[in-house]
Amino acid sequence: MIIVLKPGQESVVTELKRHFGDHHDVFVHENRVAIAGITADELIGSEKATAEELITDEPKAVQGSRQFHPEDTVIKTKHSVIGGDHFTLMAGPCSVESQAHVLKMARVAKENGATVLRGGAFKPRTSPYSFQGLGEDGLKYLRQAADAFGMDVLAEVMDDEHVEMVAKYTDIFQIGARNMQNFSLLKTVGQTDIPVMLKRGMSATVDDILNAAEYIAAGGNHNIMIAERGIRTFDNKYTRNTMDAGVVPVLQKLTHYPVIIDPSHAAGHTEFVTPLALAGTAAGASGLVVEIHDDPAHALSDGTQALKPNEFKDLAEKAVAVHDLLFGMDEEETDTEPQTRH
Amino acid sequence: MIIVLKPGQESVVTELKRHFGDHHDVFVHENRVAIAGITADELIGSEKATAEELITDEPKAVQGSRQFHPEDTVIKTKHSVIGGDHFTLMAGPCSVESQAHVLKMARVAKENGATVLRGGAFKPRTSPYSFQGLGEDGLKYLRQAADAFGMDVLAEVMDDEHVEMVAKYTDIFQIGARNMQNFSLLKTVGQTDIPVMLKRGMSATVDDILNAAEYIAAGGNHNIMIAERGIRTFDNKYTRNTMDAGVVPVLQKLTHYPVIIDPSHAAGHTEFVTPLALAGTAAGASGLVVEIHDDPAHALSDGTQALKPNEFKDLAEKAVAVHDLLFGMDEEETDTEPQTRH
Amino acid sequence: MIIVLKPGQESVVTELKRHFGDHHDVFVHENRVAIAGITADELIGSEKATAEELITDEPKAVQGSRQFHPEDTVIKTKHSVIGGDHFTLMAGPCSVESQAHVLKMARVAKENGATVLRGGAFKPRTSPYSFQGLGEDGLKYLRQAADAFGMDVLAEVMDDEHVEMVAKYTDIFQIGARNMQNFSLLKTVGQTDIPVMLKRGMSATVDDILNAAEYIAAGGNHNIMIAERGIRTFDNKYTRNTMDAGVVPVLQKLTHYPVIIDPSHAAGHTEFVTPLALAGTAAGASGLVVEIHDDPAHALSDGTQALKPNEFKDLAEKAVAVHDLLFGMDEEETDTEPQTRH
Amino acid sequence: MIIVLKPGQESVVTELKRHFGDHHDVFVHENRVAIAGITADELIGSEKATAEELITDEPKAVQGSRQFHPEDTVIKTKHSVIGGDHFTLMAGPCSVESQAHVLKMARVAKENGATVLRGGAFKPRTSPYSFQGLGEDGLKYLRQAADAFGMDVLAEVMDDEHVEMVAKYTDIFQIGARNMQNFSLLKTVGQTDIPVMLKRGMSATVDDILNAAEYIAAGGNHNIMIAERGIRTFDNKYTRNTMDAGVVPVLQKLTHYPVIIDPSHAAGHTEFVTPLALAGTAAGASGLVVEIHDDPAHALSDGTQALKPNEFKDLAEKAVAVHDLLFGMDEEETDTEPQTRH
Repeated sequence: MIIVLKPGQESVVTELKRHFGDHHDVFVHENRVAIAGITADELIGSEKATAEELITDEPKAVQGSRQFHPEDTVIKTKHSVIGGDHFTLMAGPCSVESQAHVLKMARVAKENGATVLRGGAFKPRTSPYSFQGLGEDGLKYLRQAADAFGMDVLAEVMDDEHVEMVAKYTDIFQIGARNMQNFSLLKTVGQTDIPVMLKRGMSATVDDILNAAEYIAAGGNHNIMIAERGIRTFDNKYTRNTMDAGVVPVLQKLTHYPVIIDPSHAAGHTEFVTPLALAGTAAGASGLVVEIHDDPAHALSDGTQALKPNEFKDLAEKAVAVHDLLFGMDEEETDTEPQTRH
Repeated sequence: MIIVLKPGQESVVTELKRHFGDHHDVFVHENRVAIAGITADELIGSEKATAEELITDEPKAVQGSRQFHPEDTVIKTKHSVIGGDHFTLMAGPCSVESQAHVLKMARVAKENGATVLRGGAFKPRTSPYSFQGLGEDGLKYLRQAADAFGMDVLAEVMDDEHVEMVAKYTDIFQIGARNMQNFSLLKTVGQTDIPVMLKRGMSATVDDILNAAEYIAAGGNHNIMIAERGIRTFDNKYTRNTMDAGVVPVLQKLTHYPVIIDPSHAAGHTEFVTPLALAGTAAGASGLVVEIHDDPAHALSDGTQALKPNEFKDLAEKAVAVHDLLFGMDEEETDTEPQTRH
Repeated sequence: MIIVLKPGQESVVTELKRHFGDHHDVFVHENRVAIAGITADELIGSEKATAEELITDEPKAVQGSRQFHPEDTVIKTKHSVIGGDHFTLMAGPCSVESQAHVLKMARVAKENGATVLRGGAFKPRTSPYSFQGLGEDGLKYLRQAADAFGMDVLAEVMDDEHVEMVAKYTDIFQIGARNMQNFSLLKTVGQTDIPVMLKRGMSATVDDILNAAEYIAAGGNHNIMIAERGIRTFDNKYTRNTMDAGVVPVLQKLTHYPVIIDPSHAAGHTEFVTPLALAGTAAGASGLVVEIHDDPAHALSDGTQALKPNEFKDLAEKAVAVHDLLFGMDEEETDTEPQTRH
Repeated sequence: MIIVLKPGQESVVTELKRHFGDHHDVFVHENRVAIAGITADELIGSEKATAEELITDEPKAVQGSRQFHPEDTVIKTKHSVIGGDHFTLMAGPCSVESQAHVLKMARVAKENGATVLRGGAFKPRTSPYSFQGLGEDGLKYLRQAADAFGMDVLAEVMDDEHVEMVAKYTDIFQIGARNMQNFSLLKTVGQTDIPVMLKRGMSATVDDILNAAEYIAAGGNHNIMIAERGIRTFDNKYTRNTMDAGVVPVLQKLTHYPVIIDPSHAAGHTEFVTPLALAGTAAGASGLVVEIHDDPAHALSDGTQALKPNEFKDLAEKAVAVHDLLFGMDEEETDTEPQTRH
């Protein structure tokens, strides 16, 4: 149950924690107190009197829910603001291939508006015999490249043992699709204060995503963004996955976390990356994370889906234009009749 | 195999038909001749000499392919132009409910830019005990409403026996998702000259769609458009289907037929219709077909997904703006460096 | 609502029909009366008094439900008994290829225990340019072959216009997967008294199947069997479809219609047909429909999934043995403690 | 490439390792040497001369392939033999709930023929607020219960940090579906010599499974079994997942590892567990892993899918009977005409 407190009733929070905290999880956000697994009947009179509203249909993943936290989460890193009305571009090579190469890619990313540099140092490859990344060296090169251009680093962490090490280099953790329900890993990053981009698993339902995010939030880390990267369906002949554009407004309704689109993994082929990026942007995404490479044919991983610099330039210009157009149109409406999101 | 003829070599077409026509399907489009199932070795010297290029990797659905027909198909009805750079809005009630109601909905559609009026007279309902539509009366009301506002009619035809009757009232046939591989029906509409909107089946692959369209083309009717209306995936808790935005650029690469988005059936819930419509538009769709209703709560079918007039107004304005923006940006590029689509 | 009448209260049926029949569908099966869309409050006292039980959670597809019709439907054709404890083998070539060939295949089928001869005369092919079947000639050959060996004919009907013609030759109609929701066709076969094998659509849910069957039942034809032939999932590299063995007990719980397994279309490759047939049998299916061919490499359609005569012999022996074993074990239990199915 | 050596040519292995080992992975199994990424042209004359056959179409997951390792892997633990012609029953509660309870369940499992006791001590729950298991205490109770009845322990390990600890108690590691592509974890258990049951991920393709198993094999641990536990499809209204019976013969063709069926997670509901178990057995599985509980309504997790003792007895008797029947029939055939599996 979520108790929405009347103004000036914050003092009841201590009482509620004393009353219910031993046997129930109690979460507080501004004037809202969520107490897991209780009913209105369990509140005593004085507690009830402080409530403006009792919300009883909250989901299990309560901390991530709009009922508990109505306003958008806006994540602030050194160089980026993610969520709310902001639109954030993140780009970089699939793998960090060398110190020089990631620097070159950082320049391309930054020149076209990206403020976050992505790059894989530890690569989750389907086959154990494929290139597995440069490891910690890769992270160093990524950090140097980002610093050279005033960007944030987005780096994947693949297991809880590496969280501490990756934390030394990154500004945002990426949890990959295959690890979306690696609960040990989710708990570990949940105990840090580094923002996390949680990628949707290939067959994760919306509820699965929200519960996975809740594992992070349960540890105290609320700087979470969710990335749609395409799901597995019956047809993957022409695109690697099926991008679920609908998940953007669905998640925005249900949760306050920003939703990011990864059109590269969804498309799997360069020629379809930009249309998917624009589709996700028009559906309302808060940003894009895009793989780029100056010589895709010789990339060490996933070259078929990497955009060349000029292709990324085109994508970036169009995506920003679409976001600005649609957000501008919403603003205008707001002038005449005030409205909440959705 | 497709033979691309050198300029001025059209006379060889007659020879090729005489040579191969008895045992092979032969199709001609401008300077291209497709002959099913032959290899270059079967051409005699004089035939080969007329060829600028021999294309051997054409798909089975050859008439619908870009290899055979490189330029976009543009469909012209009395009130609409569909395909190419055009953007077409189609709207109307899920079911035709009464003469007065469909007239009212036609006004809403037209006032917001729609040139095609959709409406169900024969409804394919999952249960035999659900409302099955007004039948021929529904078609009459739909026709009258469209005529009153200078619009085209888009009406579903559910079986080959009704093709002739529906043809009396409609400007565009709709083949529903459940009938996408009703080959008898496809053949019958293929023998008319009325444009056809072929809706993607719930689990139809891209190749399935193209082959279904080819059944229509094989009968001689090339005025085909393809509508994405969402596919079945593992998650339908929040949206009725999963809209596959990626199918838009994929189909545009493979076929010359216009691709239309039906965000209503994809979303299944009003609040997600507009984001999906915009996603499809940004992905490059040639138009939208949207269900509208002034009183969705009392609609005779699919009320949960019908937009109210003011919601449709908002969708229409934004979709046109997104299309114009992106198409305008493509135009600009074309000024400096000429490029073909994709 | 379903009213279960007390013994000797059959006379109330007439009263109930008079009371509700004008505005509601009323169906009667033995001592059960289903009245669509009413609540217990609408019954008058004398009506209520005749009821032993009122069932209010019946599904929309009420005539197919166990609540309305608790005992198994057992379909009797001239040479076969399908459903209940019986196990029925159906086999034959994918397409009828010639008079001589189908005769040869009928012999193989019969010698190994099949009592139903299947064979395609009108073939629903994905491409319009593939072999479309011999048409009515094919049906004649199929009928002759079945008669020569004392077998029933199972033939697909693809559109309502052909129902009358196919009815002249067949003992059982097949509705193909692509036509499972061709409601016109379902209605038309529903008006005949010829048994119908309804194949599950590629992405049809259990509820979709039951509602499709209800279209047939709504016309008065209750001799329906449902065939599982594999569904579309994310992986079809090694099998053509994914056979859903679980649908057998699920359907048996929900409906009284026999459930048949088509392992040929599920597997798509000869080597996996027998394991899938055995899996379906062990899950409780009432029979199998299997494609056979003496020279699969030269079959006119679907050769890759056709069993050779000796392979079919092996399948038939094993499937019958598994059915007899498991059914025998259930019988034994029944001796000591009587139990209803599931 | 795989080199099949002529008899008595084992000495060339050392030479091949010296020649290729610096730049290629080299694996040896009996008279077969797999060298990743080379072509026949790279072999020198004397190397070629030792080869009976060169296999060039081996998959990336080469160590798990039948081409590299034609005969079945048979895993021997203290109390069980898994794979080959053997049929192994594994059973136990979803979660270890208490010392007394797991002991009681072990008795039920053993009395009905199970030789492996399963039980969750660390539970991967969708929500962070659900019961997460008893942890190491749970493992102790599980070990004690297994020892009391002369059984092996099967326990899930959820992250690489716990591998060492879980190894103290278990005879077989379970890798759960959500961790199937947790490559760090796969590598870590690959470095132990404890057998591993790898559960198929919810949307894992056959190739994904084989590559995940290869991560374990790459570390040197070849005691791997693969468990099918149902996949995610478009319909989960009546069963929790869709059991893919076809994956049993497909995997048996491609790999030498035993394939186990988990009918409990596939079904999700007690009433469908036994039919699915029998389907998997008939399809050729080497064993079953089944959840049991004496009071499912009060189980701490997944009670809806746990079989009661008498239900498990029925399942066990039938499954063993089906396996013996079908394997017996195969044996008989073998008497007259020798044949390899599949």
